[in-house]
Amino acid sequence: MRVIFLGTGGSLPSPQRNVTAVAVQAGPEIVLFDCGEGTQRQFMLSKASFMKVNAVFITHFHGDHFLGLPALLQSLNFSGRKRVLHIYGPPGTIQTVESILNLGYFAPGFEVTAAELEDGSVVEFAGYRVTAVAMDHTVPCLGYVLEENARPGRFNLRKARALGVPEGPAYRTLQQGGTVEIGSRSITPEMVMGPKRRGRKIAVSGDTRPSSAFARAARGADLLVHEATLGSELEEEAALYGHTTARGAADIALKAMVRTLYLYHISPRYEDAGTLLREAREVFPETYLAEDLVEVSVTNDVDTEPDGSGPDEEEGR
Amino acid sequence: MRVIFLGTGGSLPSPQRNVTAVAVQAGPEIVLFDCGEGTQRQFMLSKASFMKVNAVFITHFHGDHFLGLPALLQSLNFSGRKRVLHIYGPPGTIQTVESILNLGYFAPGFEVTAAELEDGSVVEFAGYRVTAVAMDHTVPCLGYVLEENARPGRFNLRKARALGVPEGPAYRTLQQGGTVEIGSRSITPEMVMGPKRRGRKIAVSGDTRPSSAFARAARGADLLVHEATLGSELEEEAALYGHTTARGAADIALKAMVRTLYLYHISPRYEDAGTLLREAREVFPETYLAEDLVEVSVTNDVDTEPDGSGPDEEEGR
Repeated sequence: MRVIFLGTGGSLPSPQRNVTAVAVQAGPEIVLFDCGEGTQRQFMLSKASFMKVNAVFITHFHGDHFLGLPALLQSLNFSGRKRVLHIYGPPGTIQTVESILNLGYFAPGFEVTAAELEDGSVVEFAGYRVTAVAMDHTVPCLGYVLEENARPGRFNLRKARALGVPEGPAYRTLQQGGTVEIGSRSITPEMVMGPKRRGRKIAVSGDTRPSSAFARAARGADLLVHEATLGSELEEEAALYGHTTARGAADIALKAMVRTLYLYHISPRYEDAGTLLREAREVFPETYLAEDLVEVSVTNDVDTEPDGSGPDEEEGR
Repeated sequence: MRVIFLGTGGSLPSPQRNVTAVAVQAGPEIVLFDCGEGTQRQFMLSKASFMKVNAVFITHFHGDHFLGLPALLQSLNFSGRKRVLHIYGPPGTIQTVESILNLGYFAPGFEVTAAELEDGSVVEFAGYRVTAVAMDHTVPCLGYVLEENARPGRFNLRKARALGVPEGPAYRTLQQGGTVEIGSRSITPEMVMGPKRRGRKIAVSGDTRPSSAFARAARGADLLVHEATLGSELEEEAALYGHTTARGAADIALKAMVRTLYLYHISPRYEDAGTLLREAREVFPETYLAEDLVEVSVTNDVDTEPDGSGPDEEEGR
């Protein structure tokens, strides 16, 4: 699983940062969180393909978060898209998608679905799910938490050998949850597999004032992508316009006990956002600045207690 | 007067070229021809400001020519625009602009006018005018010809001195069309000013098959910006999709007797469009490839017959 920051700026683009879009590659598919203007071209400049996008989650309908949808849809069509594209967002999504589909001479050759979510709505995908969280912005806004399904534990090669399981298809059977007969004994998966490993968890804030509800929903995330529009020198302005400071984002990361925090939605007034990073790190050291076109791999290995030992161990799946 | 190529690609953006937008700086104002997605950010990467845009002329409603309008309007608003913005285009403009103004949470603090033009429509500005020309594309499309008003002739310093006109305010009076009394003699502008100089002329094709009507309208242009989506190896495909090859664009330039031809709307399949340039130059040597963010000054000095002589001469205005 990897996160690709396509656009990390807020409100307006700047030469350094395009407006908001965060892609999460989950298996062969991409889930896109927000789609600011120019997102299709950011895809072209990254290693990811917009043809892989399966679903788009819009946080809210301010221009810097969704105005890349019209051109993305038209370019998907131009590029021969056939399979359905799902678009989710807060109230207003259905009408907005309908308007977008009617801009200019455009007749998509693929189905576009639009669905409106509310606080707590869950969208299930194969292997992961996305939960919507009502945020605290100036207009209805949803944050999103993507959680991978729990994964099987690691296969303990030493135990398998000790139990006399022959190498080969029997290993695969056990890894896939089946039982293997060795002479008169039944070897069950529990005997050779470590404990289930929790799935990875990624949370994306959208635009918001600091939100305790979001901190709860993002609890324990491997990666929290949180808006940090302004620095704490502009805390009042941030609150007025429904935003969070870099320090405020770090407070949320601390409260949510996440592993890493990435600051995004940086105001174009910060040509160098180093001050934002520094103030956040004072509160939450595992903070990073999201930068356009940077990819981050999300692993949860530090949370795994390997129950095999050393080089003999084999990955469960 | 200068032309700023903001986006020179066709159909889809590419890492090298954004989709179509051509800005013409005419005095303090900018006239924008087409506004593909990402045009606001291309402005930011250029030396021109989108706040100076007075009017936008859309050639047609394929996505690569107008989907930068929604974000441009929202960013103008965010940046404090107060004065009116005029949007012109073919039939469909009024409804499209209305849809765009209703996307998301957007209430512009400035007036946006939308007007639909047809073949031969003329829009007058202070000092120049834009004429629409019906093109030959797969959907209704207008090309545009911007013509500067004729400018006063050059002030002939030698003649003024010979006539005894005192240096100073009297020069300005004559340059502005007034008569000056020197003793009992009346000195009129005609006695010291050269012939009127024709205004500069710039033509922008939009998407089209080769069009004789456009060649007539663009006749004698200082700068012809013509689409060259494909090379002549794909002439049939170009015709099928309503486009012109690079060689076809050069034919138009030759027919229209323009001074210079700039090829734009280059298909993203040409990472290096050198072949397009070469085939056009075989027909019309004064051909150049438009490149994103390149500015071209448009002068018409070669068309002026200086009636003063040498270093004594002073610019009329």
